[in-house]
Amino acid sequence: MSVPTDVKKVVLSYSGGLDTSIILKWLQTELNAEVVTFTADLGQGDELEPARRTAEMLGIKEIYIEDVREEFIADFVFPMFRANAAYEGVYLLGTSIARPLISKRLIEIAKETGADAIAHGATGKGNDQVRFELAAYALNPDIKIIAPWRDWSFKSRTDLIEFAEKYQIPIPKDKRGEAPFSVDANMLHSSSEGKVLEDPWEEPPAYVYQRTVSPLDAPDAATDIEIEFAAGDAIALNGERLSPATLFARLNDYGRDNGIGRLDLVENRFVGMKSRGVYETPGGTILLAAHRAMESLTLDRGAAHLKDELMPRYAELIYNGFWFSPEREMLQAAIDHSQKDVEGKVRLKLYKGNVIVTGRESDKSLYSDQLVTFEDDQGAYDQKDAAGFIKLNALRLRTLAARDK
Amino acid sequence: MSVPTDVKKVVLSYSGGLDTSIILKWLQTELNAEVVTFTADLGQGDELEPARRTAEMLGIKEIYIEDVREEFIADFVFPMFRANAAYEGVYLLGTSIARPLISKRLIEIAKETGADAIAHGATGKGNDQVRFELAAYALNPDIKIIAPWRDWSFKSRTDLIEFAEKYQIPIPKDKRGEAPFSVDANMLHSSSEGKVLEDPWEEPPAYVYQRTVSPLDAPDAATDIEIEFAAGDAIALNGERLSPATLFARLNDYGRDNGIGRLDLVENRFVGMKSRGVYETPGGTILLAAHRAMESLTLDRGAAHLKDELMPRYAELIYNGFWFSPEREMLQAAIDHSQKDVEGKVRLKLYKGNVIVTGRESDKSLYSDQLVTFEDDQGAYDQKDAAGFIKLNALRLRTLAARDK
Amino acid sequence: MSVPTDVKKVVLSYSGGLDTSIILKWLQTELNAEVVTFTADLGQGDELEPARRTAEMLGIKEIYIEDVREEFIADFVFPMFRANAAYEGVYLLGTSIARPLISKRLIEIAKETGADAIAHGATGKGNDQVRFELAAYALNPDIKIIAPWRDWSFKSRTDLIEFAEKYQIPIPKDKRGEAPFSVDANMLHSSSEGKVLEDPWEEPPAYVYQRTVSPLDAPDAATDIEIEFAAGDAIALNGERLSPATLFARLNDYGRDNGIGRLDLVENRFVGMKSRGVYETPGGTILLAAHRAMESLTLDRGAAHLKDELMPRYAELIYNGFWFSPEREMLQAAIDHSQKDVEGKVRLKLYKGNVIVTGRESDKSLYSDQLVTFEDDQGAYDQKDAAGFIKLNALRLRTLAARDK
Amino acid sequence: MSVPTDVKKVVLSYSGGLDTSIILKWLQTELNAEVVTFTADLGQGDELEPARRTAEMLGIKEIYIEDVREEFIADFVFPMFRANAAYEGVYLLGTSIARPLISKRLIEIAKETGADAIAHGATGKGNDQVRFELAAYALNPDIKIIAPWRDWSFKSRTDLIEFAEKYQIPIPKDKRGEAPFSVDANMLHSSSEGKVLEDPWEEPPAYVYQRTVSPLDAPDAATDIEIEFAAGDAIALNGERLSPATLFARLNDYGRDNGIGRLDLVENRFVGMKSRGVYETPGGTILLAAHRAMESLTLDRGAAHLKDELMPRYAELIYNGFWFSPEREMLQAAIDHSQKDVEGKVRLKLYKGNVIVTGRESDKSLYSDQLVTFEDDQGAYDQKDAAGFIKLNALRLRTLAARDK
Repeated sequence: MSVPTDVKKVVLSYSGGLDTSIILKWLQTELNAEVVTFTADLGQGDELEPARRTAEMLGIKEIYIEDVREEFIADFVFPMFRANAAYEGVYLLGTSIARPLISKRLIEIAKETGADAIAHGATGKGNDQVRFELAAYALNPDIKIIAPWRDWSFKSRTDLIEFAEKYQIPIPKDKRGEAPFSVDANMLHSSSEGKVLEDPWEEPPAYVYQRTVSPLDAPDAATDIEIEFAAGDAIALNGERLSPATLFARLNDYGRDNGIGRLDLVENRFVGMKSRGVYETPGGTILLAAHRAMESLTLDRGAAHLKDELMPRYAELIYNGFWFSPEREMLQAAIDHSQKDVEGKVRLKLYKGNVIVTGRESDKSLYSDQLVTFEDDQGAYDQKDAAGFIKLNALRLRTLAARDK
Repeated sequence: MSVPTDVKKVVLSYSGGLDTSIILKWLQTELNAEVVTFTADLGQGDELEPARRTAEMLGIKEIYIEDVREEFIADFVFPMFRANAAYEGVYLLGTSIARPLISKRLIEIAKETGADAIAHGATGKGNDQVRFELAAYALNPDIKIIAPWRDWSFKSRTDLIEFAEKYQIPIPKDKRGEAPFSVDANMLHSSSEGKVLEDPWEEPPAYVYQRTVSPLDAPDAATDIEIEFAAGDAIALNGERLSPATLFARLNDYGRDNGIGRLDLVENRFVGMKSRGVYETPGGTILLAAHRAMESLTLDRGAAHLKDELMPRYAELIYNGFWFSPEREMLQAAIDHSQKDVEGKVRLKLYKGNVIVTGRESDKSLYSDQLVTFEDDQGAYDQKDAAGFIKLNALRLRTLAARDK
Repeated sequence: MSVPTDVKKVVLSYSGGLDTSIILKWLQTELNAEVVTFTADLGQGDELEPARRTAEMLGIKEIYIEDVREEFIADFVFPMFRANAAYEGVYLLGTSIARPLISKRLIEIAKETGADAIAHGATGKGNDQVRFELAAYALNPDIKIIAPWRDWSFKSRTDLIEFAEKYQIPIPKDKRGEAPFSVDANMLHSSSEGKVLEDPWEEPPAYVYQRTVSPLDAPDAATDIEIEFAAGDAIALNGERLSPATLFARLNDYGRDNGIGRLDLVENRFVGMKSRGVYETPGGTILLAAHRAMESLTLDRGAAHLKDELMPRYAELIYNGFWFSPEREMLQAAIDHSQKDVEGKVRLKLYKGNVIVTGRESDKSLYSDQLVTFEDDQGAYDQKDAAGFIKLNALRLRTLAARDK
Repeated sequence: MSVPTDVKKVVLSYSGGLDTSIILKWLQTELNAEVVTFTADLGQGDELEPARRTAEMLGIKEIYIEDVREEFIADFVFPMFRANAAYEGVYLLGTSIARPLISKRLIEIAKETGADAIAHGATGKGNDQVRFELAAYALNPDIKIIAPWRDWSFKSRTDLIEFAEKYQIPIPKDKRGEAPFSVDANMLHSSSEGKVLEDPWEEPPAYVYQRTVSPLDAPDAATDIEIEFAAGDAIALNGERLSPATLFARLNDYGRDNGIGRLDLVENRFVGMKSRGVYETPGGTILLAAHRAMESLTLDRGAAHLKDELMPRYAELIYNGFWFSPEREMLQAAIDHSQKDVEGKVRLKLYKGNVIVTGRESDKSLYSDQLVTFEDDQGAYDQKDAAGFIKLNALRLRTLAARDK
C-alpha cells in the first residue's frame, strides 16, 4: 500500500454521503488518523446539515461546512468565462473548475487545524484525482495526500457495504447496489457518467438529466433576457444588479426551464482514456453566448483572435488540473488585460435549447456603422486604400507564383 | 483612376443581375475591353439560364456557365470541415470558402480565352475583394484585376440606374432603389448584411432569413438522422451513399426544415472594421456537430488537441483570403493527416434549431469501456499508475511552491 | 498626390542630415506647412547639436532635441528582451523597437505644439513607414501623416540634390551620389542594407560593419563578465548597479571589442518582399544569452515553454509595427507576469564572437541537485513514480496501436 | 517489485559496457529470462565487436549488432532539422532523437525472435526511460518493458560491483567507482551530466568535453564550406554529393576542429526537475545555421512564420518522447510540405566557435533585388500601395484610439 503510513491528521473533502463516510471511517480505523471534515456548498443542490450530523455521529470534532458559492463564481467561474473556455470545442469545464477551490480550502484548513494530510474521494481512473492533487501540491508542496479509492483493498461494492455495516455507517437504500451512473454537481453544471452511459452509441436515458428539462418539453414561448457586463463579467440581469452567484443562479433557472445546456460528449481524459459523459450547464451556456456577443462589439480584432488562439490551451490546463500553475496565470493575465472594456448589454432569446443573441450595445463599442455602411460614409473609409492593402498582402504570393511558373 | 488602362480582354464573374450587368457594360464602354462572362452554380439557388440570355443580349461571345457544386463541396467545403473551422468561434465561413473556387475558374478561363484581366463585383469595403484578388494573384502573378466598385466614378444608386438606362440594361423593379440588405449565397450558406441590419442592437427582421424556418416555426416533432464518415468526410446519409453535393443538399433540407444554423453576428473584417451579418448555414451546422462527434470517438487526444489549437489560425486564413497560400496548405497537410481513421456513424436528433448528438460508433473507435468502467476492468488500467503520474506532473509545481514559501 | 493638402503644422522626425533637411524644406515650400523638428538621441552615435544648427538655419522655430536613451532601454528594449524576442529565429529587432518610441514623442509634441500632422523620412518599400504610422495612428487616430518618400515627385538622387541646392541646404560631399548602403542605428543595434548588399550570395564587405570588430580581429584572450538580474531586467554589471542605458552601453562596448552580435540575414518584410540586411547587436546578443540563462534557473517549465511558444508571434508583432496594439499588450502582460522571480547572476565568457554561459545562480533557483543527483537523494524523488507516469502517458498511444493492429 | 514476473524472453538494448552487462545478467538470473542483445552503431564512436564478445561470454545466443547510422540521420535527424527544432531555444535534441530509433529496432527484433519484453538501461530520474517506453508502447501496445534501474534492489555502486563480481562480469578499472559524470553519445551529439556538473554556477571542467576542441584552441584561420540542399535536406558538401551519414560525419569533423556546438545548459526534464547538461553538437550546429539560411531565401513568409510558431511544440514532443505520436506526425506533415523548394547552396565560414553565413543562392529563390532595390525598380513595386496597406492595417487601431479618447 502506497498510502502515507505516518499521517496524523487529515482534512477530508466530505459530502456526507455513503462513500465519503466510508472513507472517513477508513481513515480513522486503518490509518489511525484524526479526521477533519470539509463540506462545501458549491451550489450542488444538496442540503449540508445532514453532512454535519453524520460527521458528528462518526465522531468528528472539527467540522467545516461552508457556503463558497460566491467565491466559486467570482474567482473561478467568471475568470474562466472571460476566456470563453471550452474543452475539446464544447465542454464548459464544470467539474474541472470546482476542484481547485476545494483543494485550496482543504490546504487552508489543514494549516488552521494543524493537519498534515488531506484526503479526497475521487477514483484512480478519472481526472478529478489529478485536479485535487495538483492544486494541493501547488499550494503546499509538503502536504500528504490520501486517495483511498486508489489505495484501499476493497475490491467490490459488497466489500464497501460490509465495511459500512461493520462501523454502523448509515446506508441509504438506493446505495446498496451499484449506481446506474455517477454524478458530480455544482452551481456551474452537473455531470453524469458511467454504466448506463458507457455505450456511446446509446442515447442517454431521460432519467440521467438532473437540472434541465428536455428541449422537447420546454415552453412553446420564447423568453427574452438582458445581461449586463462590466470588465468581462456579468453584473446585472434584466436591469437588476446582482452578486455573481445570485446572477448565476438566475441564469441556471432560465436555462433549466428552456432546455438549455445539455451535452452528450465523448472526451479525452488527462489520464489517457476516452470517456463518455452527459453534462448540463444551463446558466453557463447562456453566459458563454452572451459574453462572446459582448466581446464581438467591444474587443479589438487583434485581442479577440489572440484570445481564440490561446483558449484551447487555457481550457486544457484547467481540464488537466493546472489551475494553480504559472502558465495558467500567465494566460489569465493576458486574458484579463483584454477585458477592461468588455462592458455593455446583450439581449438574448431563450427557446427550447436555443440561446439566440438578438442585440448588443455598449458605450465602448468599436462597431461603426459609418465605416461599414453601403451608403455615403463621409470619408470615414477610402475604398482606394483597399487596392494597396491587397497589393501588398499579395506581393509574397505573387513572388511565389512567379517562381513556380 | 487606378484601373489598368491597357486591358484588352476581361473575364468577369457574372451573376446575370443588374449590378454585374452594369459592370459588364462599364468594362465594354469605359475600358474598351472585350468581356468573357463566368457564371457559376455554387448552389446559390438562382437559375443560370437568364444570365446567359442577358449576357448574350449585352453582346458577349464567350459565355461560361458551369455547375461547380460537386467541386465546391468536395474540394473546398469538406477539407475545411475536416478542420472544424469556425471564425471567431462561430462563423462557418460560407462566403469565404467560395471565393477561391471562383477565382480559380476565372484564372483558368482567362488562360483558355487569352484574357489578360479578370473582374469581380465586390465592393471596396468588404472581405470579398481581398479573397478574390489574393486567390487570383496566387494563381497568376501577372493577371490584371479590375474591381469596378473601387474604381468607377459612380457616386450613388441613381448614377448606376442612369448608366443602366443609357445602355438599355434590363432593370428589375425592385432594384431601382437601395436594397434593404445585401445577400450572398451558395450551397454552404446565405449571408445577409447592410442597411436594416446595421444597428447591432436591433433584432434582424424575419424577412431577412432566406433558407431556414425560424426555430419557433419548426416542426414539433424531432427528426433523427444518421451520417456516415470516411477519412473525415461525410459519405452517406441514413444509410444511402451520396455524392458530396447531393449529401450536402439533403443536410440543407433537414436544417432548413428544423430551423438550424441561423447566426446573428458582429464580426471583424480583414479590412479593419466590424460588421454585422446574419448567416444561415443549415447543413453545415449539422455537419460540424456530426464531424466533431465522429472525431471524438476516433481521434487520439494529441491529434484532437493540436487540431483545436491550429483551428483559429486556419479559419482566419480562409476568412482573410489566404486559401491558396503555403501556410494554409501546411495546416491542411497536418489536418488531413489526422483524418485517415475518422470513419463510422453519427446519429443526430434535429429539433427546432438544436443539433443533438445521440450516438456515435466506429470500427476505428478509440473508446474502450473496459478502460473506463467503474467495474472490474480485468487489469486494463492500474489505478496505482495514477499516483506516479500525478506525482511527476506535480513535481515542478511542488518545487515552485517550496521556493515561494 | 495623396498627401494631405490641408496641413498647417507638421512635427518632423529630423536627423539633421541631408535627406531629412530636404524633407523639411519640401514641407515648408510644397505644403506651406510650419515645421517643428524632433531629434532624438537613441544612442545612434551622432552628435545632435549640428541638427539644431541646421534646423535653425532652415528657419525652424520649435526645435525638440532630446536624449531618450534611458526611456528607450527601460520601456522598450528591456520589456522586449523579457520575451527573448527574435524575429525569424535570429533578428533582435533593433530598428523595429525604436520606431514606436519616436512616434510616441512625435504625437506628444504635436499635441504640445498644436500641430495637426507628423512626417517621417522612411521610404515606401520598407517596414519603417508601417511602424511609424501604425504607432502614430494608435496614439492619435486623427493625426495626419506625411511620408514624403512615398509622395513627392522627385525621381532620382539628382532631383533631390537640385532641390537642396535651390534652397541652399548644405550638402556633404559624400551625399551627392547614392550611398553604397543605408544605415539605421540606435543603442540596440545598427543595420545596413541596400546596394552593395543586394546580392545575398556575396559576403558583406568589411566596411559595412559599424560597431563591432570582426571576430577574427577580436582579442585572443577571453573576457569574463557577470550580469545581475531582477524581475527579468539587467540591473548590474560586474557587481556595479547601473541605469538601464548605462548598463546597455557597457554591454555594447564588451560586444564590440569581442566581435559579438554580427548577423547577415535575408528576412521577410511586412510589406511583402524579402530583403537582405547586416545587423550588429553587440550588447543585445550578450543580454539575450544572459537572460535565457537566468530564466533557465528560475522559470518554471510551464512558464518557460509557454513563453517559447508565444515568442514568434510577439516578435512578429513588433517587427510589423504593432507595438501599440491590444494583442502585444496582452502578450506583454503574460510575459511580465512570468518575470517576477527571474533574478540572480549569470557569468559569461566573451571570446571572438562567442557568448558562453559559464555559470548562473539565484536565490529563486528552481534547480535542485537533490532531485537530480545520481547519488542517494534521500527520498526527494521516488523512481517508482516514473513507471506510473510513463504508463498513463502511454495509455492513449497504446490504445491507438491496439486499434491499428 | 513492479517488474513483470512472467517474462520469458527479453530484447536488451546493450552497449557491451559494465552497466548493461549487469542488467543482462540480472535479467537472466533474477527474471529467469532468455536475453537477446541489440547493439546499435549510432555513431557514438565505440567499437561494437567487444560488445559481441562480452555478450557471447555471458551466454547470449541471439546477438544483434547493427550499423544504423544512415537510417538515424536520414529518417530521424534530417526530418527534425527540417523543423529547425531546438528545445528551450537552444538544445538540439541529440539524445532525444536517437531513442525512438532504438525502441523501433527493439520492437522489431522482439517480433523476429519471439520475445515478449524489451529492457533498457535508462534510470528512473531521466527523460530517456520515457522516450524508450513511449516509443515502444506506440509500436507494440502489448510489449512488456523492463527498466532495471527503476526496479532492482541494488542500492549503491558497491552492490552493483559485488553482483558483477559474483557473476564474473569483466569490470574495467575506471568503472569501480562512481563516474565523475555520465555520457550519452551518437552521431548528432554527445551529452554529459551529473556529479562534477551538478553545480550550475561552476564552469564545466575542460575534460568533460568529448568531441570538440575549445573555441580558444581552435585554428586561427577560418574555414569556408558550402552545403547544398534539396527538399530541405543537406545533400552535398563542398560540391561533393554524399550520403546523409557521410555528410553528417564530415560536418562533425569541421565542427570539432573549429570549436563549434558546445552548450552548457540548465534544462527542464519531462519528469519534472531541472538538470544541467553539457552538450556538443558540432555538425548539427552547422547544419541548423545552414538550413535556416537556405530557408531564408526559398521559403515564403507565411510558411516560415508558421514553422517558427510550431517549432517549440514540435521540439517539446521530441524531447518528451512523443516521436511516434499522431501529433508529431501531423506537425511533420506540415513541415515536410513546406520543404519542397528548400534547395540551393549556403556558404559558411567556421571560426573558433562561430558559424557565419556568408552567402546563399537558389534556383528557387524568392528574393528579388528588383523589388527591394533603392534604385528604379521598373514598376515591380508601387510605393503608393504602401499607403493603403498601412491605412487598412491601422483602421482597427484608430477605431480603438478614437473610442478610448
